[in-house]
Amino acid sequence: MRPSSRRPDQLREVRLTRQYTCHAEGSVLVEFGHTKVLCTASVEESVPPFLRGRGEGWVTAEYGMLPRSTHSRMSREAAKGKQSGRTQEIQRLIGRSLRAVVDLKALGERQITIDCDVLQADGGTRTASITGACVALHDALQGLVASGKLAASPLKDWVAAVSVGMFEGQAVLDLDYPEDSACDTDMNVVMTGSGGFVEVQGTAEGAPFARQELDALLELAGKGIGQLVLLQKAAVAA
Amino acid sequence: MRPSSRRPDQLREVRLTRQYTCHAEGSVLVEFGHTKVLCTASVEESVPPFLRGRGEGWVTAEYGMLPRSTHSRMSREAAKGKQSGRTQEIQRLIGRSLRAVVDLKALGERQITIDCDVLQADGGTRTASITGACVALHDALQGLVASGKLAASPLKDWVAAVSVGMFEGQAVLDLDYPEDSACDTDMNVVMTGSGGFVEVQGTAEGAPFARQELDALLELAGKGIGQLVLLQKAAVAA
Amino acid sequence: MRPSSRRPDQLREVRLTRQYTCHAEGSVLVEFGHTKVLCTASVEESVPPFLRGRGEGWVTAEYGMLPRSTHSRMSREAAKGKQSGRTQEIQRLIGRSLRAVVDLKALGERQITIDCDVLQADGGTRTASITGACVALHDALQGLVASGKLAASPLKDWVAAVSVGMFEGQAVLDLDYPEDSACDTDMNVVMTGSGGFVEVQGTAEGAPFARQELDALLELAGKGIGQLVLLQKAAVAA
Amino acid sequence: MRPSSRRPDQLREVRLTRQYTCHAEGSVLVEFGHTKVLCTASVEESVPPFLRGRGEGWVTAEYGMLPRSTHSRMSREAAKGKQSGRTQEIQRLIGRSLRAVVDLKALGERQITIDCDVLQADGGTRTASITGACVALHDALQGLVASGKLAASPLKDWVAAVSVGMFEGQAVLDLDYPEDSACDTDMNVVMTGSGGFVEVQGTAEGAPFARQELDALLELAGKGIGQLVLLQKAAVAA
Amino acid sequence: MRPSSRRPDQLREVRLTRQYTCHAEGSVLVEFGHTKVLCTASVEESVPPFLRGRGEGWVTAEYGMLPRSTHSRMSREAAKGKQSGRTQEIQRLIGRSLRAVVDLKALGERQITIDCDVLQADGGTRTASITGACVALHDALQGLVASGKLAASPLKDWVAAVSVGMFEGQAVLDLDYPEDSACDTDMNVVMTGSGGFVEVQGTAEGAPFARQELDALLELAGKGIGQLVLLQKAAVAA
Amino acid sequence: MRPSSRRPDQLREVRLTRQYTCHAEGSVLVEFGHTKVLCTASVEESVPPFLRGRGEGWVTAEYGMLPRSTHSRMSREAAKGKQSGRTQEIQRLIGRSLRAVVDLKALGERQITIDCDVLQADGGTRTASITGACVALHDALQGLVASGKLAASPLKDWVAAVSVGMFEGQAVLDLDYPEDSACDTDMNVVMTGSGGFVEVQGTAEGAPFARQELDALLELAGKGIGQLVLLQKAAVAA
Repeated sequence: MRPSSRRPDQLREVRLTRQYTCHAEGSVLVEFGHTKVLCTASVEESVPPFLRGRGEGWVTAEYGMLPRSTHSRMSREAAKGKQSGRTQEIQRLIGRSLRAVVDLKALGERQITIDCDVLQADGGTRTASITGACVALHDALQGLVASGKLAASPLKDWVAAVSVGMFEGQAVLDLDYPEDSACDTDMNVVMTGSGGFVEVQGTAEGAPFARQELDALLELAGKGIGQLVLLQKAAVAA
Repeated sequence: MRPSSRRPDQLREVRLTRQYTCHAEGSVLVEFGHTKVLCTASVEESVPPFLRGRGEGWVTAEYGMLPRSTHSRMSREAAKGKQSGRTQEIQRLIGRSLRAVVDLKALGERQITIDCDVLQADGGTRTASITGACVALHDALQGLVASGKLAASPLKDWVAAVSVGMFEGQAVLDLDYPEDSACDTDMNVVMTGSGGFVEVQGTAEGAPFARQELDALLELAGKGIGQLVLLQKAAVAA
Repeated sequence: MRPSSRRPDQLREVRLTRQYTCHAEGSVLVEFGHTKVLCTASVEESVPPFLRGRGEGWVTAEYGMLPRSTHSRMSREAAKGKQSGRTQEIQRLIGRSLRAVVDLKALGERQITIDCDVLQADGGTRTASITGACVALHDALQGLVASGKLAASPLKDWVAAVSVGMFEGQAVLDLDYPEDSACDTDMNVVMTGSGGFVEVQGTAEGAPFARQELDALLELAGKGIGQLVLLQKAAVAA
Repeated sequence: MRPSSRRPDQLREVRLTRQYTCHAEGSVLVEFGHTKVLCTASVEESVPPFLRGRGEGWVTAEYGMLPRSTHSRMSREAAKGKQSGRTQEIQRLIGRSLRAVVDLKALGERQITIDCDVLQADGGTRTASITGACVALHDALQGLVASGKLAASPLKDWVAAVSVGMFEGQAVLDLDYPEDSACDTDMNVVMTGSGGFVEVQGTAEGAPFARQELDALLELAGKGIGQLVLLQKAAVAA
Repeated sequence: MRPSSRRPDQLREVRLTRQYTCHAEGSVLVEFGHTKVLCTASVEESVPPFLRGRGEGWVTAEYGMLPRSTHSRMSREAAKGKQSGRTQEIQRLIGRSLRAVVDLKALGERQITIDCDVLQADGGTRTASITGACVALHDALQGLVASGKLAASPLKDWVAAVSVGMFEGQAVLDLDYPEDSACDTDMNVVMTGSGGFVEVQGTAEGAPFARQELDALLELAGKGIGQLVLLQKAAVAA
Repeated sequence: MRPSSRRPDQLREVRLTRQYTCHAEGSVLVEFGHTKVLCTASVEESVPPFLRGRGEGWVTAEYGMLPRSTHSRMSREAAKGKQSGRTQEIQRLIGRSLRAVVDLKALGERQITIDCDVLQADGGTRTASITGACVALHDALQGLVASGKLAASPLKDWVAAVSVGMFEGQAVLDLDYPEDSACDTDMNVVMTGSGGFVEVQGTAEGAPFARQELDALLELAGKGIGQLVLLQKAAVAA
């Protein structure tokens, strides 16, 4: 029995609320159980200097946690004057994951910035961020189509992410914070709607893990991501 | 007729939602119309070095805006590596306003940090922050009483804030963003539940203002704050 | 009897020494009793990026304290690598106050930077800064007229500032450091030569203050600023 | 035929030169072909604050590239005033990888800091760093045994790392820079001497990758790491 | 004829005004012609961590230029968030020069911080700083004697500094800004009252300089410093 | 007998290894005994903004120490977020020294950046850096000639540097770390191949030094630099 009492292959309750705030071109509150992340997509009609003149677009991401999104208060990165290594690692991962499903040529010379801000954290903030960000990005791109700036959306596929881990010898899906602390191996998997891998990041928290465990985790992640993509599709169909 | 179509002395719809997030000792989403600020109160059982050993507590505040809380995306202060002058000015104001209604001796050697993070901005984020923060602070202090750490709450009074301004020669209450841009004089007023002034900050945006205008603005602010305090009391009674 | 033995409505001895240093287009040492601030005005024939091409000018201010301008040595902000919130708040106030009396259109696309550096501090450094800075600005603008770059000075009025506070139930004018520490309410008031308010910033240091006290303080500030403007006029006539 | 003309499962020439510099407790120059990284291990007889009093040790890593280790000069991070996200990501990876093979309890309250500084870069700097760092760490731990501070080395196993990628549909081992640029999928794998996985980080550079490709890459990485561990053992036996 | 019309061996008019500001334990305005530097000495009854428990004191210096001390406005280091290399080089030089004439053992575990802030610059700010700082240090040390904290002043000798340079083939003393720009070789020399060298820093601005020129410059510097030390002695006798 | 057992006028064993790394236009490992510095020269076909449009080139230098180049580990400047005053002082010295022997007009609008990174430190890192940097610069300039970008090398002369000091009353050449700590006076001298002085920086570590000592030190430095220039010439002839 896992700490959350969920079945090994059971996701937390996942909700995707679109138009959560009013100014951004895409704005989605994503909830994986108690984890809540606000994902906004902002369109800018220019690209960073290193891409200028190539006729290509760019998608990038920034990530932050509100100071009291966590059990005990974390210090505010803006007050400390720098982003932690963890923050930078996560925002680089979100950016790469989203770029994997966007046709940057078709986007044209514009940049979309995804901001993922964690309002409440209970494990899996990076995987929730990717899953919610893809919907915010979808909405921003549809807005460019609706306004006639693009003929078709350059979103090539859906992308979603989930964490998996080994708990007492069994592979379990979508770890909340207490489970994450209790697991031996933690893996974050990012996949497309058509089942291709975009990122696989597995870390042995305690003992090194065996190939067989890796296989079980990847299997389970694939199932979970399949469900997440269905939820993404349902959200935009609503 | 003011841009918002409200009467000169009419507040926007104000909502105070308690327990908006689950980890903080006090957590309030305050809405003044489209302006939405998440205010959390975090209790720490120690005080900053300059107060150690005096048997007194401290209340401080930090303020931030999510990058896309505004019409066009603002750059993230954590990424830029410093907080703007405006941010620092606002968080100092919030901290002073709250300390004015707390008996710091009675609080004992503990610190309460209030985080005010703007999810959506439409003018008046600092006044909404103070109004919501006071409720979050109330809840955190009640928690200390409930857990037996304090015999009684050291909250001496309520404190709330509102902006007022001169629009086409008339004093108007609680400016939203379009009104704020159109007003000649902008004043932020912080008052206690018993009607004392805590802060008065008036700025001539265009022409200097006359004593008579100042009087009209203060009058109006007093009425608005009276209503806000009623809403604070109703919120905690709920 | 106030700590300084001055009458409640008595300013400290105020001196404005022009051409205190030789390189700046305007250079004024302002003294309010023991408080001494060097205010320089520097003209630059371009404006910051956000104003380019609009045919308008800009006036901005920076503020600093020499490390040993105070009773005990403060650490140097350049060595710490950032300006405090207090510093930023003061320099924003000085800049706004001066812009209130300059016709920025008439100034043309040039920027005037006012530097206010405190050589010796004894309370009221921000109000002394504004009062001295206006004279330095006047001199720099006259220089532009004298050199034929402007047909007439774009200075529309004088601007000066003073602090007031409640000491043992009585409103007193122009607080020095010991008085500032002993007062219940502290207010900084910025007014033009023709008596309009530019900024009113009142803070309850201890108990909240009443409307009646606010009125008494504003009254007193108005009188003090009237005298300061006469001193400004006398200084430039000399 | 891969760009380097190597067989798909062929490592570059790997060299491990111990005692490359004279001050550090462990100092290894690791070369993977043209990639050259200086790895030093520094022992400190105390631990960071978060571990004090627990009787446990700590192993951490820092990573840097000399400005002209690369084809065109990179700006110096010390001059820019911050480490890039990539730098932080890599040094966190190196630290985690090494901690996976150290018995931190047995190390006692001391910290070992591994510095990996890239003298010349040609792809695979992070995998070379891990491989060389483990030897430097070995030597520093042996030094503690030799000096009588530890009864036995707390190094539980070897750890080494290699990159693998898909080049024109085939899995290839140990990518140099031109190959890294030409590959579709890039994976860094960290494994122990006994064949357990410590880290698996795969990224789709272009199209998402399939499970089958992932399997082929993991297979190849396992072989390569086996050879690297033999080279580590040979180096310390010399 | 040198640009300043002075004789080759003629100092600018030098003035040392003690007690220029009121809070510091030593406060001297030093003027070398138009160069004006405020030097304050602040006594602190503790030493930096690296010296604690050794029974020795420390003397350190900080240097800054007011933004408009120069012909065109320099940006403020506190606003830029870092001190320039030049600033750090100068403050290290001032600190070393003063420590050369203080018996740090006799000073006991206290630190004296010298702040040298340039109010107006016309060449030679570092040499004027050292010359004025020594008088401020003298006064602060006398204060410790007067208050009974020290039995005798730990000042072992005077220290003063001057610049010399080659102008049109002739060695000239105490360069002002136009001369500094026109000279081929610039040398700053720091000497004690008894004629020993503390620092010699010569730089070829254009062509390398010959041993013969170096000798002429050192000769001239020695004469100038002799006069400066007389002025220091006269200042404290006044 | 000096601590190193060398004769007073004896240099350590000096080695200059060219093409030490493969990417830079000039790359030299310079060794002065155990002091090892990697000097690279990077050519960029543009100049910094302050020189644009003047048809002149620029030579600049950056300096760093690997964290464990020293006896005990130093903290990494990139991690601390700023370069120390010592680092900045050294890199400014290296840049000035090299510019003294380059015809910047003849270089044309391009910049050469010299990076001096200390792999192992045993005293004299700045003098070794200058000596090695000149050879790296030579090679980079020859490369511009070889590629037809310049008709002739703009290197006007060689430049080399050495430290000298007074040890037990005798002038000694090329101090290693233990000698540097034991010496009373430390002087760094930079001279050209034709014997002109570029920089002379002498510091009294303990007692002030006399003119006679200065003369002995300069004499010795001149001899040492003569030998270093021969080694530079031999290195490029090889």
